[in-house]
Amino acid sequence: MFFMRNVAVIGVGMTKFGELWDYSLRQIFTMAAIEALEDAGCSNRDIEAFYVGNMSAGLFIGQEHLGALLADNAGLKNIPAMRVEGACASGGLALREAYLTIKAGEYDLVMVGGIEKMSDSPCTEDVTTTLGAAADQEWETFVGLTFPGAYALIAKAHMERYGTTKEQLAMVAVKNHKNGKNNPKAQFRREITIEQVLASGIVADPLSLLDCSPISDGGAAVILASEDMAKKFSDTPVWILGSGQASDTLALHDREDLTSLKATRLAAEKAYTAANMGPKDVNFAEVHDCFTIAEIVATEDLGFFHPGGGGKAVEEGLTEVDGKIPINPSGGLKAKGHPVGATGVAQVVSVVEQLRGEAHKRQVNRAETALTHNVGGSGATAVVHIFSR
Amino acid sequence: MFFMRNVAVIGVGMTKFGELWDYSLRQIFTMAAIEALEDAGCSNRDIEAFYVGNMSAGLFIGQEHLGALLADNAGLKNIPAMRVEGACASGGLALREAYLTIKAGEYDLVMVGGIEKMSDSPCTEDVTTTLGAAADQEWETFVGLTFPGAYALIAKAHMERYGTTKEQLAMVAVKNHKNGKNNPKAQFRREITIEQVLASGIVADPLSLLDCSPISDGGAAVILASEDMAKKFSDTPVWILGSGQASDTLALHDREDLTSLKATRLAAEKAYTAANMGPKDVNFAEVHDCFTIAEIVATEDLGFFHPGGGGKAVEEGLTEVDGKIPINPSGGLKAKGHPVGATGVAQVVSVVEQLRGEAHKRQVNRAETALTHNVGGSGATAVVHIFSR
Repeated sequence: MFFMRNVAVIGVGMTKFGELWDYSLRQIFTMAAIEALEDAGCSNRDIEAFYVGNMSAGLFIGQEHLGALLADNAGLKNIPAMRVEGACASGGLALREAYLTIKAGEYDLVMVGGIEKMSDSPCTEDVTTTLGAAADQEWETFVGLTFPGAYALIAKAHMERYGTTKEQLAMVAVKNHKNGKNNPKAQFRREITIEQVLASGIVADPLSLLDCSPISDGGAAVILASEDMAKKFSDTPVWILGSGQASDTLALHDREDLTSLKATRLAAEKAYTAANMGPKDVNFAEVHDCFTIAEIVATEDLGFFHPGGGGKAVEEGLTEVDGKIPINPSGGLKAKGHPVGATGVAQVVSVVEQLRGEAHKRQVNRAETALTHNVGGSGATAVVHIFSR
Repeated sequence: MFFMRNVAVIGVGMTKFGELWDYSLRQIFTMAAIEALEDAGCSNRDIEAFYVGNMSAGLFIGQEHLGALLADNAGLKNIPAMRVEGACASGGLALREAYLTIKAGEYDLVMVGGIEKMSDSPCTEDVTTTLGAAADQEWETFVGLTFPGAYALIAKAHMERYGTTKEQLAMVAVKNHKNGKNNPKAQFRREITIEQVLASGIVADPLSLLDCSPISDGGAAVILASEDMAKKFSDTPVWILGSGQASDTLALHDREDLTSLKATRLAAEKAYTAANMGPKDVNFAEVHDCFTIAEIVATEDLGFFHPGGGGKAVEEGLTEVDGKIPINPSGGLKAKGHPVGATGVAQVVSVVEQLRGEAHKRQVNRAETALTHNVGGSGATAVVHIFSR
């Protein structure tokens, strides 16, 4: 006989995302951590363990060992602390580990962090080189494939098979900028037009500059609690109903199909099964739109639209804040910003704000259940979580 | 009501440690993984999840995202896969995560990997620079402290307070080389003398070259199973009785005491409590001897000897293979080699060989219970596990 324990999010915090030249990595994270602790109404001494998602502080700023470093800086003295990494899915993985260890009965109150300092990087030639470490170095990066290049291949395949257009891609960026305008912590808070996206310089055909999420600094933190602790500390716990994770080949040429991410499909299947729900039961979602094409593919793989239907859905406004299934009401990676290791945790912050009804101008009308979707590399890691208030 | 599940190690594998110029990181890990699968008698398709400990493949070879990459290379298709990192304690942390997720009921059969490719590193100026990423970059590394320097400070403090001698430090190296001679997978398989250690060049006073563990390539893998699965696949399961983890400040100057690692003491306390055992109940241990002084401090912090008694204990032969409490019968990090992310998993391989009675010439006489102790940085992360056959 084996009993599961329920797990809730009881506190959230994040810094503004953007170019934070005045703050170091550890300062950025500490600000997010303090905000999460205050939001949860618990003390640093209550926290029993710490998981932090970070993609590449080693390459960006020459600092590994962030678990212990950031725990210490956030006042979480001597507790178990570790970094987990799965490229840009690192934050989602950290959330999942914390969730599972609470389920295991090992801890009752855990802080999950996500952090990346991408600007002001003394240790790498350029950010694109470091991001390339998430792809297959031997078979992709060393021979010249960049990350925009990888997603450009996915976009080309999707356009070829389903007739997805460059205009539909642009509409994803336009929608997410519209949402970001209402998010005080977003990196970009101005609206853009389809014409501007189409006229922006080509990065990797068919992706233009405004199809790409930006280079960002930022930190996010959330506090997870077992059911007993959640009831003790919070009147508005947000429950984690399901968690799913899957992997795939790093190299695109080893995949069965370029128009869909198998890891997303498998992770979603597990999360839906655990939550005893389907795509129709989800009120809104924060998905991994590192490039505009990625959002379209994600909405198909998560079951919100049929394969090939994602482009049309954006065009029809189904993914707007007041649409059938709002996607990235926070502004997404595109407008909120994408400090890679922080993204998976920041998605949870956005979802919790919505489920508590505290999202102000970007509030989704019916916000009872939500889904987060975090991807590493060009789809080799995917993590999906389902939440309810 | 909450029930725990028992967890066992049912398969182990590791490559020879050393300078493996002919193999890439992924090849090294795949060899270890196949050996572990064969040893467990299970198929790659049986494995439900993968955790890999790695300190710094980003800085060493420009490759992050090792969870998905190595799972794919080892034939573990599409399963949840992630890297965990806590500097040189990464392997021990990976073991602990796998252990906790099986306890949580999430998985029944999990592969734990550890890997590092430190020679043949195109991406860093030198290995010492990369290892410095485990220390506090802003307060230690950027101002010139190296890792041997950090442990030299610990050694100086220990000598000052307890009268520990350079000869006693040397005896640790001599013992571990004697043990390594009998380990076919050890990097160094020749005996050395106290005189040779004392005469080897000073790296950071009082530590000489032969007080330091080497730069190594190597991979290790173990298969963990829930009780039901362990009984299905194995006649000789090795049970994990307890697991403990703790953290401390990265920077030495923030510590209360330099002669002891608080994180080790806290991690050991948790592991002993979980196992319902004390230091006297442990038959032998694999401890983190990245430098000779580290082994002496570890044997005190783990409770095998009183504070300050570690030097004398080595001198009296208490830690020899046939001594009262054999320490590092595998040769330890000093002689077996120290591919940093692999070490915590390789310690488990060594312990399982002993507990099964398969350690041949290095077999400990009474091998019923054992302890592994894995440290990150100069003690900011510590992980302790207790095993029994």
